[in-house]
Amino acid sequence: MSHTSSPRFSGVVPPVATPLHSDGTIDHDSLRKLISHLIDAGVNGLFALGSTGETAYLTNAQRVEVVSTIVSAADGRVPVIAGAIELTSARVAELARELEAAGVDAIVATAPLYTLNSMSEIAAHFRSIADAISVPLWAYDVPVRVHTKLSAALLLQLAEEGVIAGVKDSSGDDVSFRRLVAANEAAGHPLQLLTGHEVVVDAMGLAGADGVVPGLANVDPAGYVRLWDAVAKRDWEAARTEQERLNSLFEIVFQPKGLSPDATGVGAFKAAMTIRGLIATGTMARTVEPLDGDTIERITGILAELDLSPAAS
Amino acid sequence: MSHTSSPRFSGVVPPVATPLHSDGTIDHDSLRKLISHLIDAGVNGLFALGSTGETAYLTNAQRVEVVSTIVSAADGRVPVIAGAIELTSARVAELARELEAAGVDAIVATAPLYTLNSMSEIAAHFRSIADAISVPLWAYDVPVRVHTKLSAALLLQLAEEGVIAGVKDSSGDDVSFRRLVAANEAAGHPLQLLTGHEVVVDAMGLAGADGVVPGLANVDPAGYVRLWDAVAKRDWEAARTEQERLNSLFEIVFQPKGLSPDATGVGAFKAAMTIRGLIATGTMARTVEPLDGDTIERITGILAELDLSPAAS
Amino acid sequence: MSHTSSPRFSGVVPPVATPLHSDGTIDHDSLRKLISHLIDAGVNGLFALGSTGETAYLTNAQRVEVVSTIVSAADGRVPVIAGAIELTSARVAELARELEAAGVDAIVATAPLYTLNSMSEIAAHFRSIADAISVPLWAYDVPVRVHTKLSAALLLQLAEEGVIAGVKDSSGDDVSFRRLVAANEAAGHPLQLLTGHEVVVDAMGLAGADGVVPGLANVDPAGYVRLWDAVAKRDWEAARTEQERLNSLFEIVFQPKGLSPDATGVGAFKAAMTIRGLIATGTMARTVEPLDGDTIERITGILAELDLSPAAS
Amino acid sequence: MSHTSSPRFSGVVPPVATPLHSDGTIDHDSLRKLISHLIDAGVNGLFALGSTGETAYLTNAQRVEVVSTIVSAADGRVPVIAGAIELTSARVAELARELEAAGVDAIVATAPLYTLNSMSEIAAHFRSIADAISVPLWAYDVPVRVHTKLSAALLLQLAEEGVIAGVKDSSGDDVSFRRLVAANEAAGHPLQLLTGHEVVVDAMGLAGADGVVPGLANVDPAGYVRLWDAVAKRDWEAARTEQERLNSLFEIVFQPKGLSPDATGVGAFKAAMTIRGLIATGTMARTVEPLDGDTIERITGILAELDLSPAAS
Repeated sequence: MSHTSSPRFSGVVPPVATPLHSDGTIDHDSLRKLISHLIDAGVNGLFALGSTGETAYLTNAQRVEVVSTIVSAADGRVPVIAGAIELTSARVAELARELEAAGVDAIVATAPLYTLNSMSEIAAHFRSIADAISVPLWAYDVPVRVHTKLSAALLLQLAEEGVIAGVKDSSGDDVSFRRLVAANEAAGHPLQLLTGHEVVVDAMGLAGADGVVPGLANVDPAGYVRLWDAVAKRDWEAARTEQERLNSLFEIVFQPKGLSPDATGVGAFKAAMTIRGLIATGTMARTVEPLDGDTIERITGILAELDLSPAAS
Repeated sequence: MSHTSSPRFSGVVPPVATPLHSDGTIDHDSLRKLISHLIDAGVNGLFALGSTGETAYLTNAQRVEVVSTIVSAADGRVPVIAGAIELTSARVAELARELEAAGVDAIVATAPLYTLNSMSEIAAHFRSIADAISVPLWAYDVPVRVHTKLSAALLLQLAEEGVIAGVKDSSGDDVSFRRLVAANEAAGHPLQLLTGHEVVVDAMGLAGADGVVPGLANVDPAGYVRLWDAVAKRDWEAARTEQERLNSLFEIVFQPKGLSPDATGVGAFKAAMTIRGLIATGTMARTVEPLDGDTIERITGILAELDLSPAAS
Repeated sequence: MSHTSSPRFSGVVPPVATPLHSDGTIDHDSLRKLISHLIDAGVNGLFALGSTGETAYLTNAQRVEVVSTIVSAADGRVPVIAGAIELTSARVAELARELEAAGVDAIVATAPLYTLNSMSEIAAHFRSIADAISVPLWAYDVPVRVHTKLSAALLLQLAEEGVIAGVKDSSGDDVSFRRLVAANEAAGHPLQLLTGHEVVVDAMGLAGADGVVPGLANVDPAGYVRLWDAVAKRDWEAARTEQERLNSLFEIVFQPKGLSPDATGVGAFKAAMTIRGLIATGTMARTVEPLDGDTIERITGILAELDLSPAAS
Repeated sequence: MSHTSSPRFSGVVPPVATPLHSDGTIDHDSLRKLISHLIDAGVNGLFALGSTGETAYLTNAQRVEVVSTIVSAADGRVPVIAGAIELTSARVAELARELEAAGVDAIVATAPLYTLNSMSEIAAHFRSIADAISVPLWAYDVPVRVHTKLSAALLLQLAEEGVIAGVKDSSGDDVSFRRLVAANEAAGHPLQLLTGHEVVVDAMGLAGADGVVPGLANVDPAGYVRLWDAVAKRDWEAARTEQERLNSLFEIVFQPKGLSPDATGVGAFKAAMTIRGLIATGTMARTVEPLDGDTIERITGILAELDLSPAAS
């Protein structure tokens, strides 16, 4: 594996939602439309097959389908990184090679799922995956789903060995992230560090993040591009102002009541994207429960208040 | 799906270990030998591709390979149930159909992994899997790995709907299991209830379990057959005596120090099986760390004290 | 400290509920009546100031009040052990000395609360408490409240040192309890081991428990006395039958809906005790929410079905 | 209770460490010296009896002692808020009244410990405490110790009712804190919001925190005063630079190996304070384990590198 000429994912790298027809099959037309909308808005990369992309609910054949469409629609304008969410290293590697063949520029993987491993076994897991692929490997730290926290020490060790090229941090642990930023800086910045928390991008930018993977950018990519531009210019007041506007928009995810976290988050994004005309339906993957009409009305209201409906197209 | 003529898994149903060559490939010869040893010892069924079988570390192709060998070696003498351990219903269903084609008599699945679902979404998950297969579906409750506890209410609801035929309980929650037994009895015993906890089989038998899935039976199947015979005869003192002997043997899993739970449990079983001559090597799946020589020596000592080495082969 | 002549708590040792007047003050008359009822039913000891006794909600002055009444009402007929539930060792010791002065025969304490300690600090915690009192110290293992699991190794170490004389196990971890029983037996039975799980007493008796601390015995002490008599005679079928009758009664705790675990458990017990005429009101400690009328009606129904209302007063 | 003229805790409000003599008794001389050092450095308030103050290990008599010395040493120059860390509302109220009598300007309490309550019972808990005291009540959100997360909705509801005047957030959940800031702003800023995370003060300041409760300010109060001055001037680059210097200092807490979190954090602070000559000994409360000599040497080295040894006095 050689990472020397690898794309440096940074700035705004949205986790692309996976539009579905009402029968649950992939809606490639909407997906292409969405990719165009994101790239036109100025995003810096695309994160395919993340949690927002409902990747856990897709078969491997569907995952390859989705990635192929994203790569083809992106057409080299921005790099594409894809999640290879699987139980263990042999299975991740198998899938990652398929995604690599489909044209992605990097792979992102979590610690093992279901198994009960030590930190050194988890390190071996990432090494084993990196050995199996030709594109750079990233680590995805999302303890609420994986039930393992990747320590700064582990991540830096893997960086020094050339095993991983970056981290997507969705740990919700800003104290630990801050320490990772400092250790990464001290080591010469071997890792690109992206935060997955779209409501604190200004603060994470100040703390030293290299970019953000904002699910909400599926709804308002231009807002995140403006936000990150302000971060890049170190205009922290402008960044904060844009962040707060986006956080008002983020209230859409608190509108569904009594549904699961998966239904709530992706459901609100897809509902808002449908209202804005970015995708055809808000259908979620089987067996996630749909939002009801009242919820969609409240989401419509929030979009209207922020002049976000329909999309400028 | 029709479950009317389905085999009733009960008694001793070992989760079959997956023997590996030292290069990590499946050792089918050892697997066949192991199956013969288990059936000759009198076990009542075989549980393929469980946690003890290291299924999480196997690719789907390897899983089908393993199941094919088990089904062929069992040759109809005892029924075979296989774990379809995957993230979500579409993925479980896809794999389950392959395992069904390979000849298993039933499928067992967990709640979704990685995703964040509500109880009603989890119910829909099991319904969706059951719809996709022709053999009976079982629910596998193992919160330490899945991070979801399946409630008695959910399981009984799925039983009433004809979605599931049984439960393998590895929840470590004997209070909840007892309530499930009572509710199942009150409903006319729609579910077969197997405990996964091999060190409390006498007590779970008294409580009303229909059988046990003992990882340790890979090492001493005859002991578990004697134990369950005593339970079946309601000879509780004999059951307790045999259980306590087996619990002395179970001390092998406390010998490894500083290793992960997966390395510790499966590693001790495989080391003991190798010492007893039941399989060729103690190799574990990649990236699980091996036991050291001192540990294996201590395990050898425990086996010797219990006159368990080598196997009566 | 000298434990040589200490009472050996075993058999049925109910965690005594704390009756309250509707204004929240201690109802000593009801408490005395309850103690008489328990002792007349044949219980072997009394566990004062446990979770069922709402001890966490009482001031230290109230705790001493409660213990004084219990000790005086018991009048030496059965021994009394009292919980000293406090944050850390200095605080536990201070309270424990007051409870000892009030006449209890033993003290039971948990691992520290709120703090973040190592296992060796927790061992020192128990040593420090034992040094401060003259009566035997017991360890109370209730991870759902304390958020620490006391390991078998720690408990046996403390037993060997003469620090603790027994364990009340409310860990809900029957596998670990079984291992503790075996290790305790191997060490010459230095510890008395009581289970706190009232719905699996038959199974825990078979597994080797020395007794039970059943909250439900506040409602039906005679049932638990019959159950333990069967255990003591090793008549496991009789034990199971009585256990199952008691488990039908335990369904009272599943009647409250939408309330907290504390409201649900103690609330159901106190409601049933009021219906049976054992105490004057079902009032719970401030700020626990009361059961509603419908719930109390369902509890009344369950008692009636089991011919448990009113008490034989 | 009337909060209209209550002091508005904001800026730097250090959680005051509790100096101990080597026999474990309170070292009032060191405590007075520490208070002077903190106030001279320019802190805006004092947080007595927090986790850094080892309050959980102190008896109530010791707590009152500590608070009396702090209040007397502060002598009205800055306001004092004190933690009343107890299990439940009646016990908190009892202690809080003692602390109020000792002269504190506000009380801070957590959700109940040990008990298993609903959110509405937790709301009642705070209402009950507020009713019992005359000074303002704050909520302390520290789930790693209390095992309950206080939701933004609950805190805003209590603010609207006039029950609480502020929040000390040690939840480690910056996403939730950000939402609390926004909701508080929308409600007219009824709550003062202090973060307990000393390594992200710049970012939390940008996000809208009103101040910080930095344990590390016991070691370098002047640094935190400079940091907050930069935040107040909205000079985010200066804030970040000072934060990063302080974070290099914070590495002292990662020097102890194999000790508990309590030993590690407070131990490192006390060791550094001793090295700087701010207190007489690094003794921690019983039963917390001491740092070894190598660790103290490494801490000395970190202080030296940052020119922080000895204190400018």
